[in-house]
Amino acid sequence: MRNILIIGAGRSATSLIKYLLDKSESENLHITIGDLSEENAKKFTQGHANAKGIYLDVFDEIARKEAIQNADLVISMLPARFHIEAAKDCITYGKHLVTASYVSKEMQALDEDAKAKGLVFMNEIGVDPGIDHMSAMQVIDRIREGGGKLLLFESFTGGLIAPESDDNLWHYKFTWNPRNVVVAGQGGAAEFIQEGTYKYIPYHKLFRRTEFLDIEGHGRFEAYANRNSLKYRSVYGLDDILTLYRGTMRRVGFSKAWNMFVQLGMTDDGYTIPNSEDLTYREFINLFLPYHPTDSVELKTRYALKIDQDDLMWYKLLELDLFNAEKKIGIKEATPAQALQKILMDKWTLKEDDKDMIVMYHKFGYELNGKKKQIDSNMVLIGEDQTYTAMAKTVGLPVAMAALRILNKEITTPGVQIPISKEVYEPILKELEEYGITFKEHFADYLGYNPEGVAG
Amino acid sequence: MRNILIIGAGRSATSLIKYLLDKSESENLHITIGDLSEENAKKFTQGHANAKGIYLDVFDEIARKEAIQNADLVISMLPARFHIEAAKDCITYGKHLVTASYVSKEMQALDEDAKAKGLVFMNEIGVDPGIDHMSAMQVIDRIREGGGKLLLFESFTGGLIAPESDDNLWHYKFTWNPRNVVVAGQGGAAEFIQEGTYKYIPYHKLFRRTEFLDIEGHGRFEAYANRNSLKYRSVYGLDDILTLYRGTMRRVGFSKAWNMFVQLGMTDDGYTIPNSEDLTYREFINLFLPYHPTDSVELKTRYALKIDQDDLMWYKLLELDLFNAEKKIGIKEATPAQALQKILMDKWTLKEDDKDMIVMYHKFGYELNGKKKQIDSNMVLIGEDQTYTAMAKTVGLPVAMAALRILNKEITTPGVQIPISKEVYEPILKELEEYGITFKEHFADYLGYNPEGVAG
Repeated sequence: MRNILIIGAGRSATSLIKYLLDKSESENLHITIGDLSEENAKKFTQGHANAKGIYLDVFDEIARKEAIQNADLVISMLPARFHIEAAKDCITYGKHLVTASYVSKEMQALDEDAKAKGLVFMNEIGVDPGIDHMSAMQVIDRIREGGGKLLLFESFTGGLIAPESDDNLWHYKFTWNPRNVVVAGQGGAAEFIQEGTYKYIPYHKLFRRTEFLDIEGHGRFEAYANRNSLKYRSVYGLDDILTLYRGTMRRVGFSKAWNMFVQLGMTDDGYTIPNSEDLTYREFINLFLPYHPTDSVELKTRYALKIDQDDLMWYKLLELDLFNAEKKIGIKEATPAQALQKILMDKWTLKEDDKDMIVMYHKFGYELNGKKKQIDSNMVLIGEDQTYTAMAKTVGLPVAMAALRILNKEITTPGVQIPISKEVYEPILKELEEYGITFKEHFADYLGYNPEGVAG
Repeated sequence: MRNILIIGAGRSATSLIKYLLDKSESENLHITIGDLSEENAKKFTQGHANAKGIYLDVFDEIARKEAIQNADLVISMLPARFHIEAAKDCITYGKHLVTASYVSKEMQALDEDAKAKGLVFMNEIGVDPGIDHMSAMQVIDRIREGGGKLLLFESFTGGLIAPESDDNLWHYKFTWNPRNVVVAGQGGAAEFIQEGTYKYIPYHKLFRRTEFLDIEGHGRFEAYANRNSLKYRSVYGLDDILTLYRGTMRRVGFSKAWNMFVQLGMTDDGYTIPNSEDLTYREFINLFLPYHPTDSVELKTRYALKIDQDDLMWYKLLELDLFNAEKKIGIKEATPAQALQKILMDKWTLKEDDKDMIVMYHKFGYELNGKKKQIDSNMVLIGEDQTYTAMAKTVGLPVAMAALRILNKEITTPGVQIPISKEVYEPILKELEEYGITFKEHFADYLGYNPEGVAG
C-alpha cells in the first residue's frame, strides 16, 4: 500500500478524496485524512476500508511529524500560510508534497532541498491557480512548437452560480470564500500590459474597466483585471509579449453594480466601525452618505450614486435589503468589508439544491509565417450538487491526479514547482476530460488591440 | 545668559530665530543653531553676537549630548521622527524641549520622566498643529465658562499662495512640503462625526465632498476632510459633541481638478513604475488610460474624465504640460505620486518674489440658555517674502514664544504636552497679534447641519 496523507478536509476536498478512494483498490492506496475535526475527517472516508480519518492539528509538531513519517506523499489542503511546517517535515522525512496554493517565499526556499532529495513539491495545481496554468501552457507550447510567436495572452477565471440556480439580480452567489470576493482587487492598482505599454487601474476604477467574453451556449460574461497580471510573465516565457492580462469573470452587470459599494467605500477593510455590532444595515450604509437633515437614506444613496429609482442598479440594492432598519450587522469591531459581507451572505449563500459553475477563458494571439492569428479557448463546468461542486472538482481532481502520478513515478522532476511542464499538464488535462473538464478551442481573426499596428 | 539650542535650520526656522535674536539682548539669550550644514547654521545667525552656528548631526551621540548639555532649553525643528534621541537627552540632562511636531508614541512615553524632573516638553506648537489648538481652545474654554454646551466644532487650515502671487489656474503653489500635498488623504477613509453620526469618505471621493468657506476680504475657499477629525475629540474635552470635522483649505476649484489625478490613479504611492526615469510626461499619463490604437492621449484623457476640451478642467491639465512628449520624469523607480510631484513642481514652485498665505477657519456651534449660537473665527496671514513666509511665521513664532516663556518660568506645568491650556495659549495668542497673526470672530446664526432638530 502507498500511503497518502491529506491535511485539511474542507469543502474543496470532496472530489479529491473521492478520486483517490475510487482508485485505492487498483492503485494500492491508503488514504489518511487529518483534520482539526476528527468527525469531519472520518465523514470524508465514507467508511472506505482504505481510508481513515484522524484528528490532526498541524501545529502539533509531534502529531504532524508522525503523520507525515507514515505517508509516502502529503497533500495539504490547508490555507497557504499553514503549509510550511508540513513542507519542512516532508523534506526531513523525504516525502512528496502536493498543494493547490500559490508558492510562498518560504515554500520556494525549499526548492534546493527538495531537489537534493529527489522530491516533487507540486503547488498551484488546483483550478486558479492550476488548470489555468496547464491549459494555457499547453496551447502556448503548441503555438511555439509550430513556429508561432506569442503576441497576446489573456486569461480569465470565474467561480459563479450555475444558470439553473441563478435567481438573483446580481447573477452571483458565494460559491467560494466570500471574503475574497468582498476584498477582491484591494491593496494596490491592477497592473497589466497592453500592446507593449504598461497599464494601471486604481481600485476605485477596477470594476468600470471590464471586458466582455462570450462563450457559445453559455452567453455573455464580463471580466475585471486581477491585481498582478504580470506574475507569470517570465514563468510562462512571455517576457516579450505585447499584451498580458489576467482577470476575474462575472455575469454581465455584476461589476457595474459592485462598483456602487466601491464608490461608497463599503468594501474598505482598513478600519473598524465603532459600535458595528449594534448598527442596522440602514445605519451602516448611512455611514458612507453625506449628512442631510431630511433626505432619506434611500434618496441620499440614489443621489450619491446618481441612479434613478427605476434603474436596475437600484433594484439590486433593494434586493440585498440594504436599507433594513431592523437587521443588525452583529459583528464586533467590523470593518466595512466585514459588515458588507454579512449583508451579502444573507442573500448570496447557496441554497441546498444550488449548483455552482466554473468558467475559464483564454485568448492567445500569435504571429505565424507573417500572419496574425488568435486561438480562444474556454472551459465551463457545472457542479453536480453541493458536495461535488464544480469548485471541488476543478480544485481537487488535478491535485489528486498529480499525487497519483507522482507516486507512480510518471511525474518525477524534483523541486518546488507549478504545473507548467508537459510531463505534468499533458496527462492531467487528458484525464480531466473524463471528468467533464474540457477546453473548447476556436480560431478567430487576430483580435489584438492594434491588429493593423497603428501607432497610438 | 540663557542658552537655547535650535536643532535643524530649515525654511521654517527663519522667524523663530529672528524672534529670539531680536530678544537676545533684553532677555539675555544665547542661541546655538545646529544643522547638518554648518554654513546654513551660520547664515541663520546673521552674524549676531548672541548666536553661533555649528555643525550638528543629531545621530552623532557625543556631539548631540554635548550640545544639549550646554543648553538650558532645546528647540527641535527636525522632522518629527528625528526628535526622540534629543528628547531623551533632554530628560537625562534636565533640559526643556519645544517642537512643532505631533506627539509621537515615543515622545509621549517620556511624559512621566519629564514630570519627575519638572521639565516642560511642549509639542505641536507650530501652526497646524499649534495655532489651531490654541485659537480653538481659547474659544471653546470661553464658551464653556459662559455656560455654553458645544454642539459643533469644525476647523480648517490651508497653506496657500498669496493672491498677489496667484498666477495659475489651480490657484495653488507648493508653499510647503510638496510630497504631503500629493499624498494628502491617502492611507484610509476620512472619518468624522456629523450630527451624532459617524461618517466616512473613501480616498477616491475625498476631493468631491468639499465645503465652501468665505472669509471677508479674502473671498471663497473650499475644504476637504482630513483623515482623522476625531484625533483631538477627548483632548479638547469634546467627547459628546455632535459634529466634529477637520479639513484642509484650498482655493475653490482645486479639489475638483485634483480629483482628476485621483480618479486616474496618478497619486498612488504604493508601487513603482518600470523604467520611470525615461518615461515622458505623456507616457506617464498614458499608463492610466485605457488602450486605444488610434485615439490620442489627449482624447483618451478627456474621455476617461468625461470633460470637454473647452472645460476649465482641461486647461488646468494643459497648464501643467502633462502631455509633453519630450520632458522626462527622470526619477528611477518612481511611484506615480513621485512622478506626479515632479510634473507639478515644474509649475507650482514659488518664484522669487512670490508670497505665501496661511488661512485658518474655525466654526464653533453651541447652545446657551436654550438658544443655539455659532461663532466663526478666522485668521489670514500673508508672508513678507520668501524668507519670512507666513508658514515660517506661524510655525516659528509660537515655538519661539513658548521657548522664551518656559525659560522665564511663565509656562511651568511639566510633562509632554500640547498647547491647550490657558497658561500657554493666552499669552502666546496675545503676543502673536503683534506679528499680525490675529483671529477675527463673528457671531452667526447656528449653522449646524440640523438646526431644527429634524430627524433624518
